[in-house]
Amino acid sequence: MIQGIGAAAGVAIGKAFVLPNWEWSLPDTQVNPVDLAKEFERLYEGIRTSKDEIEFIKREFREVVGPEESSIFDAHLAILDDPVFMSEIRGIIERQYKAAEVAVKEAIDHFVAMFDLLDDEYMKERAVDIKDVGNRLLKHLLGAPEVTLPSDTQPYILVAKELSPSQLAHLNPTYVLGIVTMMGGKTSHSSIMARALGIPLVAGLENKILTPIQTGDLLVMDGETGVIQLYPDELTLKEYTSRRAKQQRKKEQLELLATVDAVTKDGVQLRLAGNISSVKELDMVLKYGAQGVGLFRTEFLYMDRSSFPTEEEQFEVYKLVAEKVGNETVVIRTLDIGGDKHLDYFQLPEEQNPFLGYRAIRISLDRKDMFKTQMTAILRASHYGNIKMMFPMISSVEEVQVAKAVLNEVKEELDQQGVPYNRNIPVGIMIEVPAAVMIADLLAEEVDFFSIGTNDLVQYVLAVDRMNEQIAHMYHPYHPGVLRMIRMTVEAARRVGIDISVCGEMAADERSLPLWLEMGISDLSMSPQALLKVKHRALNTLASEARETAKSCFRHRTSTETEEILTAFAGRSGIPLGAGAEVKGKSS
Amino acid sequence: MIQGIGAAAGVAIGKAFVLPNWEWSLPDTQVNPVDLAKEFERLYEGIRTSKDEIEFIKREFREVVGPEESSIFDAHLAILDDPVFMSEIRGIIERQYKAAEVAVKEAIDHFVAMFDLLDDEYMKERAVDIKDVGNRLLKHLLGAPEVTLPSDTQPYILVAKELSPSQLAHLNPTYVLGIVTMMGGKTSHSSIMARALGIPLVAGLENKILTPIQTGDLLVMDGETGVIQLYPDELTLKEYTSRRAKQQRKKEQLELLATVDAVTKDGVQLRLAGNISSVKELDMVLKYGAQGVGLFRTEFLYMDRSSFPTEEEQFEVYKLVAEKVGNETVVIRTLDIGGDKHLDYFQLPEEQNPFLGYRAIRISLDRKDMFKTQMTAILRASHYGNIKMMFPMISSVEEVQVAKAVLNEVKEELDQQGVPYNRNIPVGIMIEVPAAVMIADLLAEEVDFFSIGTNDLVQYVLAVDRMNEQIAHMYHPYHPGVLRMIRMTVEAARRVGIDISVCGEMAADERSLPLWLEMGISDLSMSPQALLKVKHRALNTLASEARETAKSCFRHRTSTETEEILTAFAGRSGIPLGAGAEVKGKSS
Repeated sequence: MIQGIGAAAGVAIGKAFVLPNWEWSLPDTQVNPVDLAKEFERLYEGIRTSKDEIEFIKREFREVVGPEESSIFDAHLAILDDPVFMSEIRGIIERQYKAAEVAVKEAIDHFVAMFDLLDDEYMKERAVDIKDVGNRLLKHLLGAPEVTLPSDTQPYILVAKELSPSQLAHLNPTYVLGIVTMMGGKTSHSSIMARALGIPLVAGLENKILTPIQTGDLLVMDGETGVIQLYPDELTLKEYTSRRAKQQRKKEQLELLATVDAVTKDGVQLRLAGNISSVKELDMVLKYGAQGVGLFRTEFLYMDRSSFPTEEEQFEVYKLVAEKVGNETVVIRTLDIGGDKHLDYFQLPEEQNPFLGYRAIRISLDRKDMFKTQMTAILRASHYGNIKMMFPMISSVEEVQVAKAVLNEVKEELDQQGVPYNRNIPVGIMIEVPAAVMIADLLAEEVDFFSIGTNDLVQYVLAVDRMNEQIAHMYHPYHPGVLRMIRMTVEAARRVGIDISVCGEMAADERSLPLWLEMGISDLSMSPQALLKVKHRALNTLASEARETAKSCFRHRTSTETEEILTAFAGRSGIPLGAGAEVKGKSS
Repeated sequence: MIQGIGAAAGVAIGKAFVLPNWEWSLPDTQVNPVDLAKEFERLYEGIRTSKDEIEFIKREFREVVGPEESSIFDAHLAILDDPVFMSEIRGIIERQYKAAEVAVKEAIDHFVAMFDLLDDEYMKERAVDIKDVGNRLLKHLLGAPEVTLPSDTQPYILVAKELSPSQLAHLNPTYVLGIVTMMGGKTSHSSIMARALGIPLVAGLENKILTPIQTGDLLVMDGETGVIQLYPDELTLKEYTSRRAKQQRKKEQLELLATVDAVTKDGVQLRLAGNISSVKELDMVLKYGAQGVGLFRTEFLYMDRSSFPTEEEQFEVYKLVAEKVGNETVVIRTLDIGGDKHLDYFQLPEEQNPFLGYRAIRISLDRKDMFKTQMTAILRASHYGNIKMMFPMISSVEEVQVAKAVLNEVKEELDQQGVPYNRNIPVGIMIEVPAAVMIADLLAEEVDFFSIGTNDLVQYVLAVDRMNEQIAHMYHPYHPGVLRMIRMTVEAARRVGIDISVCGEMAADERSLPLWLEMGISDLSMSPQALLKVKHRALNTLASEARETAKSCFRHRTSTETEEILTAFAGRSGIPLGAGAEVKGKSS
């Protein structure tokens, strides 16, 4: 039994396939000074090809897993633009007359050694990224083939020194039962990706395995506890087989909940909707029984294109989504680019702090042509289903007033053309900027609904960029300041009598349920993956008990206390899914 | 009479000195391919020298004018690291075999032409920066002498097509009465710098002057209205002379206020302290009659060095400041690096959003060695004066508790060594993160005082980076959300009975005075330049009237309404300084 780091939950049993290291044979000849320019040409060509390839992987991965995780590849793209890394490579070519591939290899080794020297998780992770990108660049410069994984064998447990995000993105989850790596930890990019793909992963085994694992060795692993066992005996095999079966059963039972109402044990009804970025994701949302779409992130219609989508193109998508959702509601959020989301064909300024910059409604109000096109498409689609329109990043009353004035212009234009649309389309705003919370009472008078975007709100309230690994441990949705802001928002909405919902990660965290119940929020919108988990939690919760627990949270001075209490409550009140007929008995 | 853009207030009368354009004679020979590496060497050498020079100017300028304005040169340094600009230059050398200086010139022209094409103030400003940096680089590559301004003549009005920040930084204000430029506007870097230096500037005269101004031409100008007049007649000269005299008198009278108490007409006493970054600035603060130092930004002790300042070095500075301030208080803020402030010898991670990143107390709590050294120096100095200690960027109760625990460790160490210090040194925090406002009641129980840092607070509450010119118009200190947050903080402090003050730009804006009076804040800390202006406003204000005005502000829904009302109030209640003996009558 060997103890590693449990980085992606799940039990796996199978034979090992040991991934060979990338090995390069590099030319050792000097470049003729006259050919330096040619060598640079090769380098730039390699960079271009690598970038295209990373862009491709990123897109593919986003479709399969989602936008959050695919942003890992932005870090890779950034390395290829990194002036320090690139000037190191160029310097070696220029001054030492070495071939591009040799220069790349030496630069990688240099930076990896440097980052590895620092005893810092963040820097180590950057080293993995540089190695990954560098190897891709090397591959292109050498014309080497992609290292592929077998897909004509039995499914296997993949064993590697370390696995780069690029390699993970190419995995076929059908063949890979689990992953074991010597390096890495819980927060490494590969672990994040494995969790998103649902493949169990145990990391950080270096120095713990005395005899190296060989391809073909039998292995059991538990990605939750971080335990692996080589050559397991009968008893162990039996134990892991039973745990795997239980896990499978749990998954199946969770899936049965798709058609069950989201209602607490004492009858409090919730409305769980899905967050989507594409029509493809809608299918998953509907499969998991979401009650409509609580957040349609339209920016993804604008991405991976060479120009803005036309009104007609947008209309078709919005209409299709509205029709598929049927009687339920679709909340369409207008374009939210800027921050960490960019369009190839719409140049945004270089910003020191893009999250505090030119983004979302700020761009839409600046670019009325674009804004009107989107509004027109949404209004036209509103004739075919229950559509609501929502503006992101609102921070003042004026912004809402101007946006509504533009909407009225669009309505008049449609009237003149005799195009049908829902004249009473509900208009709402995201509450995600602290200023919006502080003036929620004023904003409530301007709109039909609020949706609290906890991701950005937490970020701004705490002044913590959650993508920044150096301070990620400070990103606390349960911070008393955040909870108080949410409550302020709810109270403002209630006083004026408008609808309120929560989208963002907090809604997807089942431990938050007591907070929503206590504040009287029943509309939650979340990623498809979270829907059944949250519903399961609701089915196993007594709202009256949950409210008492939440009340104590509002009295706590620290996020740690609140998180502990909510975690304990979720653990206590949960009836394990495998345990019995409880769940089925509730189905409607 | 020619109407330009008034970019820096003040009247000037004098003869023109027309700045010659930088003219370069460039080699037109091709580079031998064998010498390409040498050409790159020259380019890199030029870049290095340019960077050193910019760093030097930046430091000089910071000493004279302040940290805000000197950050303009960070934009310049960034250009020399800009991968796009640099790869353009390298491309021209590499592919067209042109000399480094030719490549630099062509790259400048290319980017400037591109940016100028866009009808966008922000881009035009970037073009000026690129031209400025590019010219500096060219100068070094060509070994050309610095274009210097005469300093052996009579003082003159400087006339230029455009003036770069670099050129402005070299100006001797004694010789330059005023500046007239054809290009530029209110928000251009040069205008910001001229305002900081107190030199009148009229910009944007292009296409408005039919005959070009010649060196020696007599000129009058008004940097407030943006009017200039060539060859003024007797009457005009007389008028401008009288206005200049009035302006001078106003300045002198303002200076008389240094020894006057800051008290409203109806007897409400204020305490105006100064913000400083160095001992040098302290002299100015004392000269303008500040009641102590409300904010000592210690990070500047850490800058422009090659290693951390020792305990002894810090102790000497803190002690000196405390002694100079005498009976008044000095609030020493512990290190606030990160964000836009960096140390050469302490590598911070590359961050997507440094303002939402690893900075201030977050770094101090991570680097206890450094934190303890600073605390020890502050404690030791506390024996020699009235020192308070303040922590920046606090966002949770835990942070305060940990910081206080570290402080106790340091106290124990000093006790063991028998070193004297003020055992009851007051400990406070900056309120600048929205989370801190939301839990101000909890934080108030942990500390002795709050100081509201409005610059960062506004930035986070509105999610607007005020350095980002694209959205600078959204940076509204009078946003109702900001005002409510300030009030929440004041109320929390009052309930527990701890001191509260405001530092940051809002305190320096005399229009805010009614807000402070209404909320009962009497401690304000500001840059030395603002002290007399705010005091003058206080002397001319009836607190009872001001409070009524402020009350209405708290009812407004938009920042525009509030700003209009406060501006009008400041205009109405103000007795022009030149007008009479009112001010002198108040002196104590």
